[in-house]
Amino acid sequence: MGKFNLKDLKFDKNGLIPAIIQDYKTGAVLMVAYMNRESLRRTLRLKKTCFWSRSRKEYWIKGLTSGHFQFVKAIYYDCDMDALLVKVRQVGAACHTGNRSCFYRKISGTVLKSKRELSPKRDTSPNRSRTVPS
Amino acid sequence: MGKFNLKDLKFDKNGLIPAIIQDYKTGAVLMVAYMNRESLRRTLRLKKTCFWSRSRKEYWIKGLTSGHFQFVKAIYYDCDMDALLVKVRQVGAACHTGNRSCFYRKISGTVLKSKRELSPKRDTSPNRSRTVPS
Repeated sequence: MGKFNLKDLKFDKNGLIPAIIQDYKTGAVLMVAYMNRESLRRTLRLKKTCFWSRSRKEYWIKGLTSGHFQFVKAIYYDCDMDALLVKVRQVGAACHTGNRSCFYRKISGTVLKSKRELSPKRDTSPNRSRTVPS
Repeated sequence: MGKFNLKDLKFDKNGLIPAIIQDYKTGAVLMVAYMNRESLRRTLRLKKTCFWSRSRKEYWIKGLTSGHFQFVKAIYYDCDMDALLVKVRQVGAACHTGNRSCFYRKISGTVLKSKRELSPKRDTSPNRSRTVPS
């Protein structure tokens, strides 16, 4: 593999890479946000998460106004080099709703029981039987 | 919030939503992959993860050839409704490299110490001092 270089990461056509934010102690997944190369550099420099806001089109240091900083403990990248896992010490809540994690709502097991959600195309989808390795 | 409906999820312009796969017991983040509405329906129906392969442009039931299935224990969606967290029982390795998790490599803390990685634009970036809520 050789020495890691930020240039080796695969940013998408908008220059972004998804960053999964995980509580370094509990393992809870707190949120997902996007970084560009410069926000990753800032994250590494500040040791606090800095994202690129796709909607506001600006850098966003998490917690700068709310106080809910994410202090970076470690950053991992995946086998395809197109996703990041950032382990943090989260101050307060990660979610703007006040919930500790943004993933505070669960899809019920009954969601498919309604006629509306049962796909009428389930047996006619062109790729239904196609499979790929691993 | 009312009853959850798959139609309420925000898929991107390619019809995809990122799905973070997490070991339901250890909390380890195993991988990130993408689902479209139909692969999410299949995941819910099969109780095994089914993704949409962006490179191969086909459905992809994880483990169908490797045996490394991911049995779904719970699915959460985030506050913005544009990301999924899938808690699974992972059979074997999640990563095609044989590693349990795709996030098996860590960015060293020294990555910014080389002159090459220290951004020369750090003080001239137009958005450097801009901040946003939370």
